[in-house]
Amino acid sequence: MNALISGLPLGYRFRPTEEELLDYYLKKRIASERIDMDLIRDIDLYKIEPWDLQEIYGEDAREWYVFNKNNKKGSRICRSTAGGYWKETGKDKPIYSKQAGGRHQIGQRKILVFYKGRSSKGQRSEWIMHEYRRGATPQATKFTL
Amino acid sequence: MNALISGLPLGYRFRPTEEELLDYYLKKRIASERIDMDLIRDIDLYKIEPWDLQEIYGEDAREWYVFNKNNKKGSRICRSTAGGYWKETGKDKPIYSKQAGGRHQIGQRKILVFYKGRSSKGQRSEWIMHEYRRGATPQATKFTL
Repeated sequence: MNALISGLPLGYRFRPTEEELLDYYLKKRIASERIDMDLIRDIDLYKIEPWDLQEIYGEDAREWYVFNKNNKKGSRICRSTAGGYWKETGKDKPIYSKQAGGRHQIGQRKILVFYKGRSSKGQRSEWIMHEYRRGATPQATKFTL
Repeated sequence: MNALISGLPLGYRFRPTEEELLDYYLKKRIASERIDMDLIRDIDLYKIEPWDLQEIYGEDAREWYVFNKNNKKGSRICRSTAGGYWKETGKDKPIYSKQAGGRHQIGQRKILVFYKGRSSKGQRSEWIMHEYRRGATPQATKFTL
């Protein structure tokens, strides 16, 4: 996303902290406020494969940020794409704010791994999703490869 | 180091890749060329304690970049500070360039952990150093906490 800002020294990137992601960007998105320079875009993650992100953002990066909505089928959240599925790993982690002296929870993080292929027979890939929630949809999502 | 560039959207930081660090910044430093905005400063890491970095860079960060020289005592590299010592962990990792089609090694990375106290009795801290070399001193060093 560096391409959006010209004249920056080599090595400057959009690398928000978890707190900035939850308490600034996701808060703005939930309130439907505009995000500077579309730094984080709305993308339906279950309509694309993770490697499509490289094309969408047109960048030689290893980390991407998007807003995503839950893909609900009835009361169940469906995390399949055409070519595979996202599977939760580990436990949800509470994220705390460090501001104003106190320490209060501002959201939580879930980690998911992408598997190629169908349900229980999928092949684990190197694609990782960090899903940040403030309780409501949409979520802010960080991808890493 | 965000403080050096005003007007950037929240979340932009100096987070160079290993290749940028070795093949741009460290190469310039070895050639004694000027580094934009003193993004990476010369600091003798064995004359300070790692937590002094927070004061030197005056920033609420968790990651810092400095240039460092080997602290040699005779032929031996001494990695002690007044309050503790840096200890190697794991094996050196070769770093490759991805440019120009080919894949050639441009340097290596060593990881060190800071221990408080004296030699073998030290107490492991959460301070980590990534030391990047192109063969010669100085090295580019990334700290994380």
